[in-house]
Amino acid sequence: MPSFAEVKAGLAMPLSDAMETQRSIRRLRSDPVDDETVRACLELAIKAPTGGNLQNWEFVVVRDPDVKHQLARLNRQAWSVMRRIYRTQVRNDEKGLRGLAAGQWLADHFEETPVVVVACLRGPRAWFPPVVVTSYYGSIFPAVQNLLLAARALGLGAALTTLPVWSSWMARRTLGLPWNVSPIAAVPLGWPQGRYGPTIRRPVDEVTHLDRYGKPFGG
Amino acid sequence: MPSFAEVKAGLAMPLSDAMETQRSIRRLRSDPVDDETVRACLELAIKAPTGGNLQNWEFVVVRDPDVKHQLARLNRQAWSVMRRIYRTQVRNDEKGLRGLAAGQWLADHFEETPVVVVACLRGPRAWFPPVVVTSYYGSIFPAVQNLLLAARALGLGAALTTLPVWSSWMARRTLGLPWNVSPIAAVPLGWPQGRYGPTIRRPVDEVTHLDRYGKPFGG
Repeated sequence: MPSFAEVKAGLAMPLSDAMETQRSIRRLRSDPVDDETVRACLELAIKAPTGGNLQNWEFVVVRDPDVKHQLARLNRQAWSVMRRIYRTQVRNDEKGLRGLAAGQWLADHFEETPVVVVACLRGPRAWFPPVVVTSYYGSIFPAVQNLLLAARALGLGAALTTLPVWSSWMARRTLGLPWNVSPIAAVPLGWPQGRYGPTIRRPVDEVTHLDRYGKPFGG
Repeated sequence: MPSFAEVKAGLAMPLSDAMETQRSIRRLRSDPVDDETVRACLELAIKAPTGGNLQNWEFVVVRDPDVKHQLARLNRQAWSVMRRIYRTQVRNDEKGLRGLAAGQWLADHFEETPVVVVACLRGPRAWFPPVVVTSYYGSIFPAVQNLLLAARALGLGAALTTLPVWSSWMARRTLGLPWNVSPIAAVPLGWPQGRYGPTIRRPVDEVTHLDRYGKPFGG
């Protein structure tokens, strides 16, 4: 497996290349990922903005097999529900079926993931009013996206998942989190079995409006 | 003001440079930003991941003075409340006071912002259970972060704000959004009066734990 010294040059990847080829990679090799490589991802994660610049995040880097096993159990519980919902949504769409298979693969092999980074927020979990809830989640997902882009640039496979922390109560117990720290998302990290590559999206024109909803953005 | 042709090379900025120098810029020049430049930011925004790859986002690019004025009013309403809260938090911290002044500047000059991009989500606004709420917001803030990083790479000033859409009901009316599309965040875009530059954050070691909360991450 590559060391940080071998992959760190990847962080100079052009920004647009990193974004255009970012892709959720759930099929990961079990080969170790060194601490320096994980740290490089975290160093860039914490450059993201937070509401009021509070930087009220906490990250747990999980390598311990027992802790990983507990997260794997939580992930399987949630996946057994979610796969049914996804299955009705994707039907015979080939791309959706591939995503479903990748989710199943992760559920079956979660314990083999070399590192899982759990991103958490300190402070009471916001649930009302909407603008406060928005600021709350807006203070962690930009950091998670930086983490994912950094992983991509280093050649690490990664995916944004929430299922391993679907129960805050159980995930908090597993990770020994204080009552006022909530686990928000889990990012499995490892050297990929597959590869990154360009992704296909609904085009900008289909989802962009000028001034008011429904008026085309001609730009 | 620079055209897209003049700034587009910036998108090749090394990923780590873009992240390390990303900073909320609220003091913007009123000079126009062309559609191509805005489009380039959106093209990269939509490369971000979404829960179940649903891509259930909608973006409204606001240039119209009347629509901007309505958002400015909403922003001022929320700011008049938030500045009091921030003021008690920052006390005499110099950096916090600068942030407060920048927020005040934006409140006073919001109408002069050349472009405001409002990021929205289609589908019922999630409020329970937490894992569903997390997936909901996790499907828009990675895109917003891509937008902010793209803006930084192009030399555009930008900031992640929620105050101009603090009232979903009023923002929805202002933007003509259908009932099932919720405005989540607003990003004012313009050529900066100030400059980007390295940011200071609490160090990784202070916010990172190994396996369980409280155990130092030595990596």
